[in-house]
Amino acid sequence: MQFNTLILATLTASVLIQSVFADEPIQPITPAKSINAAQAELGKKLYFDPRLSKSGFISCNSCHNLSMGGTDNLTTSIGHNWQQGPINSPTVLNASMNIAQFWDGRAADLKAQAGGPIANPKEMAFTHELAVEVLASIPQYVAEFKQVFGTEKVTIDEVTQAIAEFEKTLVTPNSRFDQWLLGKKDALSADEQAGYKLFKESGCVACHNGAAVGGSSFQKMGLVEPYKTDNPAEGRKAVTGKDADRFFFKVPTLRNVELTYPYFHDGAAKTLTEAVDTMGRLQLGKKFTAEENAKVVAFLKTLTGEQPSFLIPILPPSGDKTLHPQPFNEK
Amino acid sequence: MQFNTLILATLTASVLIQSVFADEPIQPITPAKSINAAQAELGKKLYFDPRLSKSGFISCNSCHNLSMGGTDNLTTSIGHNWQQGPINSPTVLNASMNIAQFWDGRAADLKAQAGGPIANPKEMAFTHELAVEVLASIPQYVAEFKQVFGTEKVTIDEVTQAIAEFEKTLVTPNSRFDQWLLGKKDALSADEQAGYKLFKESGCVACHNGAAVGGSSFQKMGLVEPYKTDNPAEGRKAVTGKDADRFFFKVPTLRNVELTYPYFHDGAAKTLTEAVDTMGRLQLGKKFTAEENAKVVAFLKTLTGEQPSFLIPILPPSGDKTLHPQPFNEK
Ligand code: HEC
Ligand code: HEC
Ligand code: HEC
Ligand code: HEC
Ligand SMILES: [Ca+2]
Ligand SMILES: [Ca+2]
Ligand SMILES: [Ca+2]
Ligand SMILES: [Mg+2]
Repeated sequence: MQFNTLILATLTASVLIQSVFADEPIQPITPAKSINAAQAELGKKLYFDPRLSKSGFISCNSCHNLSMGGTDNLTTSIGHNWQQGPINSPTVLNASMNIAQFWDGRAADLKAQAGGPIANPKEMAFTHELAVEVLASIPQYVAEFKQVFGTEKVTIDEVTQAIAEFEKTLVTPNSRFDQWLLGKKDALSADEQAGYKLFKESGCVACHNGAAVGGSSFQKMGLVEPYKTDNPAEGRKAVTGKDADRFFFKVPTLRNVELTYPYFHDGAAKTLTEAVDTMGRLQLGKKFTAEENAKVVAFLKTLTGEQPSFLIPILPPSGDKTLHPQPFNEK
Repeated sequence: MQFNTLILATLTASVLIQSVFADEPIQPITPAKSINAAQAELGKKLYFDPRLSKSGFISCNSCHNLSMGGTDNLTTSIGHNWQQGPINSPTVLNASMNIAQFWDGRAADLKAQAGGPIANPKEMAFTHELAVEVLASIPQYVAEFKQVFGTEKVTIDEVTQAIAEFEKTLVTPNSRFDQWLLGKKDALSADEQAGYKLFKESGCVACHNGAAVGGSSFQKMGLVEPYKTDNPAEGRKAVTGKDADRFFFKVPTLRNVELTYPYFHDGAAKTLTEAVDTMGRLQLGKKFTAEENAKVVAFLKTLTGEQPSFLIPILPPSGDKTLHPQPFNEK
């Protein structure tokens, strides 16, 4: 009975909801579904564990800080040995909705992506073998991997699976914009609504659409007017080899864009004002007035959703045999 | 009525408790008292905020990671520009109980300490002026400082006060050892109890005593037999200028020592087994058998208390005018 009522309520709500935003190019974010909670809990520890890096100092959270919108807010990242990274670190928030991972889409999904940074000499500078050896030497991890995956032997496969499962929980529903979409008409101010209208009518939604307000296609940066940058990244061309794909980047999600400064793959735009101005001119041949720009920015800030909220993970201590971190190439 | 019952219960409990551990050299940790919750909440954000560093990458939590026993588990720390630190990073857990801060006690208390790392060129490499300028440019911080301190103008004084207040919350009560002290006789195994007996009877408690099992005095490292190290730190002498204080270090707390490897001011002892062996020989002229050593280690692991448990802080976004981080000395 209670069950039936619930189903009915859900159906009614979804019909209602659909009718409210059916004509909108942006849909509300739905909370994460069908998460394996035990995997995600293990993955959270791994995400925060600097022992997956050679130095013992850098974790996923160093560059995708969940206190800071899932980014490092740097132009380009700092990696092992303070190496300057090649490209701006994108947010992990809502990354599960992306068509593919990385600016050029070279990883198919979160699991495929998660192995990358561990072994990237400019990021965590470790190897999968050593990372797994470290985890296998930590008794509480061994027990948790066994409990979660039923496996006696930890492999990189379970490591990336658990991290990806945790990342799937990093969605940010209930932004003011979503509340507005769902019918709460006073959730947005008049300026914010005007900004949304400009965002739709100017054509931004051609590329930034769907629940993630982006993430669903690769598009040319500098469509109408070329983009000038010193950054050597060529985007999608690096994956397809095609000249036509040069300077095509995955359209970033604009969810939580208030928090993910600086902007663009090279991190060159420091403020939303600047990014919106550039987008208008380069992608649409449109020069926003200061007033219009401010309205679009006001709208974009309504896309900040509920940030992931969880207790800081407590990491299991290393064992006596655990490999020691090597931050300074000590023998 | 309920109030009176509570007082009565508390009194009875404290009489009971006193009688239980009155003769012991170690007392249970009591939960943090008289904390200014609003200051601590602000301090938590600051503790996790890498914008207090020049690079925008290093926060207090980088070197005193609350997922890892309040330490970085490195021999010596990694600071700005990947500089190798001079000394092992002590835990912030229960640091409020210390007689003074730093290995040589050169800071009187947590508030006096907290300004140090921000301006230390080998740690966060910033200046107090710039750190304050950054915070003053972040609207949500300005509002929170005003709410918490009633101040229009943020100064380093409120910054260090808030951080210190947060640090006061970082106590770790309810370890198995404390449960045992408080009368739960099956909280420790026979070996663990035997280890405690050895710890007391060998003389470790001469230096490691009180609720923090240390932290209350400066003692010579290498009392009976000299300590050999390449580390140039001279300990307390650096503060007093007296030759007699050479190699006197603050006795570290042994609370959570299972989590705070590697050990000693130079981080040279990788395991508790090694640290206990060294302590026995150098401080007491006593060579523990492998079996005795294992028992002392088993006892020490019962000092792991409840780790600080709180939601990851969500940091307020920078404003358009906020100074940009300078990780690579860019202009
Ligand atoms: C040293 C910095 C650094 C570390 C450490 C790091 N990342 Fe990244 N991450 C980046 C950068 C930079 C990119 C973009 C690279 C590119 O697109 O070519 C990226 C891309 C990603 C993406 C793709 C997001 C998108 O929208 O395309 C995900 C997901 C991700 N990282 C997750 C992780 C996980 C999980 C870890 C830890 C196992 C991790 N990162 C460690 C810097 C880092
Ligand atoms: C033709 C496709 C296209 C159109 C139209 C478009 N964008 Fe973009 N947008 C992109 C791509 C691709 C990027 C990433 C470019 C890069 O990083 O080099 C991007 C990046 C952004 C960013 C930075 C996001 C980040 O996290 O770095 C913002 C903000 C943005 N767009 C807003 C807008 C606005 C506002 C409009 C309309 C005025 C707009 N975009 C129109 C494709 C488009
Ligand atoms: C780059 C690494 C690093 C950073 C960043 C750092 N610390 Fe430390 N911290 C250390 C080291 C190393 C010591 C020991 C220095 C000494 O004793 O001479 C220390 C000592 C301390 C102590 C004294 C503990 C004791 O028992 O003596 C406290 C408390 C402390 N730090 C808190 C903080 C706070 C608060 C911040 C941020 C404002 C911070 N630290 C930033 C590495 C760091
Ligand atoms: C005479 C004083 C004294 C006695 C007795 C003593 N200690 Fe210590 N202990 C210290 C000092 C001082 C240090 C810090 C030395 C350093 O870092 O150079 C220390 C450090 C330690 C550490 C490392 C803690 C850390 O976080 O680095 C452990 C473990 C330890 N002692 C255990 C013991 C045990 C077990 C005994 C008895 C066998 C013992 N101590 C006896 C003074 C003493
Ligand atoms: Ca960015
Ligand atoms: Ca870090
Ligand atoms: Ca240590
Ligand atoms: Mg990466």
